[in-house]
Amino acid sequence: MAWVGRELRSTIDKNGTLVLSLDQVELTEPGDDEVVVCVEATPVNPSDIGLLLGPADLSHIEPPEGSQAPCLKLTVPPARLGAVAGRIGQSLPVGNEGAGTVVAAGRNAAALQGKRVGMYGGAMYADYRKINMREVIPLPDGASAADGASMFINPLTALGFVETARREGHKAIVHTPAASNLGQMLQRICLADGIPLVNIVRSEEQAALLRSIGATHVLNSKDEDFATRLTDAVAETGATIAFDAIGGGKLGSDILQAMERAAARTPGAYSRYGTTVFKQLYIYGSLDTAPTMLDRAALGYAWSVSAWLLFHYLPKAGPDVVQRLRQRVADELTTTFASHYTRTIGLAEVLQADVLRAFDRKATGEKFLIDPSLG
Amino acid sequence: MAWVGRELRSTIDKNGTLVLSLDQVELTEPGDDEVVVCVEATPVNPSDIGLLLGPADLSHIEPPEGSQAPCLKLTVPPARLGAVAGRIGQSLPVGNEGAGTVVAAGRNAAALQGKRVGMYGGAMYADYRKINMREVIPLPDGASAADGASMFINPLTALGFVETARREGHKAIVHTPAASNLGQMLQRICLADGIPLVNIVRSEEQAALLRSIGATHVLNSKDEDFATRLTDAVAETGATIAFDAIGGGKLGSDILQAMERAAARTPGAYSRYGTTVFKQLYIYGSLDTAPTMLDRAALGYAWSVSAWLLFHYLPKAGPDVVQRLRQRVADELTTTFASHYTRTIGLAEVLQADVLRAFDRKATGEKFLIDPSLG
Repeated sequence: MAWVGRELRSTIDKNGTLVLSLDQVELTEPGDDEVVVCVEATPVNPSDIGLLLGPADLSHIEPPEGSQAPCLKLTVPPARLGAVAGRIGQSLPVGNEGAGTVVAAGRNAAALQGKRVGMYGGAMYADYRKINMREVIPLPDGASAADGASMFINPLTALGFVETARREGHKAIVHTPAASNLGQMLQRICLADGIPLVNIVRSEEQAALLRSIGATHVLNSKDEDFATRLTDAVAETGATIAFDAIGGGKLGSDILQAMERAAARTPGAYSRYGTTVFKQLYIYGSLDTAPTMLDRAALGYAWSVSAWLLFHYLPKAGPDVVQRLRQRVADELTTTFASHYTRTIGLAEVLQADVLRAFDRKATGEKFLIDPSLG
Repeated sequence: MAWVGRELRSTIDKNGTLVLSLDQVELTEPGDDEVVVCVEATPVNPSDIGLLLGPADLSHIEPPEGSQAPCLKLTVPPARLGAVAGRIGQSLPVGNEGAGTVVAAGRNAAALQGKRVGMYGGAMYADYRKINMREVIPLPDGASAADGASMFINPLTALGFVETARREGHKAIVHTPAASNLGQMLQRICLADGIPLVNIVRSEEQAALLRSIGATHVLNSKDEDFATRLTDAVAETGATIAFDAIGGGKLGSDILQAMERAAARTPGAYSRYGTTVFKQLYIYGSLDTAPTMLDRAALGYAWSVSAWLLFHYLPKAGPDVVQRLRQRVADELTTTFASHYTRTIGLAEVLQADVLRAFDRKATGEKFLIDPSLG
């Protein structure tokens, strides 16, 4: 038996033409350890958008003439081509995670037959996905595919932040942008685990949302007295680690400076080299692709700015930790790790210019879910 | 008995006036564990200049009217005052290290009487310095005060780089600006210890100087093909750690990108999140006080940019390591750790506007030594 369905692919050629296409693919029988899952829900995460659109210029989007398959053409400006040199000419499937129903199972995976599962591993923007049984987790009774669609990246990232902070000896955390699905999960984890969290948002609506789930430290970076309030919040909580998905500009630098100012309030802590309090900024996304501006004046000499990536963190954390985190996600799927979507679209809708532009805005609070059965 | 001499001090008041003055101070008898050293040579390091001049504007320097003592007034622009808030109103002695002859010794330090020693601990821009015996090291026979004046900061920093690189699992190092006294020491250490070193300089003269002491990888950042050559040198050596005293601008980012490009040459190493090869940039100075510009495009998600400071490193390294490093400096003082000075000045000359401006240029290859006996 075989399963025929659509699969979304993104290809950049050496001239900078990026083609998005919905290809017909045929899946053969699953191997002994494999299952075939009918995809019912798959989220649009920033990391998916990076793969889908690369550094393309979204002001010109054109459907190619005379094409049979659903297809769309974008252009990557020459200056940005170097950043994607490693993927030139490769037809890349998209979609890191999703959920659906097991429609076929190999010999060792028979127990999963007919079950609804969450899964992780790429190529989820498709009607069907064949996948190793170890990469799927059966959903709790009553959980929908939408509930399970985002049970890997955001939950494990939020849990990974808390594990990282603990392992590196920090007692409180700063997070931005804090009102995202991930940010809400992080706030719920921190409340449950007793870890003070300083949330930085960009609007009063986002602040209100976070307060409604129990956040006590919520700062709007657009407020005039933001720097002072941030320093106060950092001093009150003792936060010395921050996670930042914005990346570009000077917010990360501002956070480190607030930590240094807070540390310098301890009498005797100041020297001409700054305090000895170690301050860590992790950049885990790139919502703003502009360069990170690190103003070292008044920052001292005890700080680090590093990249944080789930796919680098998990192997370092080790299988025992990963298993513990996965179990917590499954146990608290519809509470701590509940995700919210503002719009559900079909697979073919991804090839619409206005949808792509909405993806590219990466606005906090705007979150897409793809349900291939919608078309 | 008492020793009366001059001591250079730097004071910034709350209005931003920075006063440099040569004060008369009187040193009393040394305690049991102390010695009094007649200072014969003390270098002008970037860290000294930071304390001496703060973020003052050197375009206006005026001698204050009617002052008795040698004295000079500078102005710190209001926008830069926040960076030195912790030192406002404090009269700070200057000069991290130096060398001289022990003219008085406490009971437990009697063996040092009459000896020429190198020493570390601040307030060295003075005629006399009273100091704990544990902060001095007797110079080898035949070594001059100039030989021993810089036996702490640069040698221990260069050795600290190599220790840090080894401890963190790196097999080759990138350094900039590489032609400094510190850079030359680092090259000699790396040659002795068999660690490949990629030197980045800003002129052909500096490149020639480094080659003359055995450097094989020397790159001029002003060359048009610098980025390509840096990538090649990094690929050839396997360098994944860099030490940078410039700090401002995009050179640090360029170095990390070269490391990432070099790592991506390994077939299969590329993914859309970059390679998994961890790249570390340490900023250990601030010759350029402008913000660090970190261009994260094409950098992947396995990197860290951190501050490196000798005074934070040594306590972390522990007393055994520090003792081993100090011993190596003493053993190789006039070879590996030889320092070169382009100009020797008296203590009073520090209060001359043209001398201060020469300090502030922080030009590689221009290095001042102060000999208080010259006036």
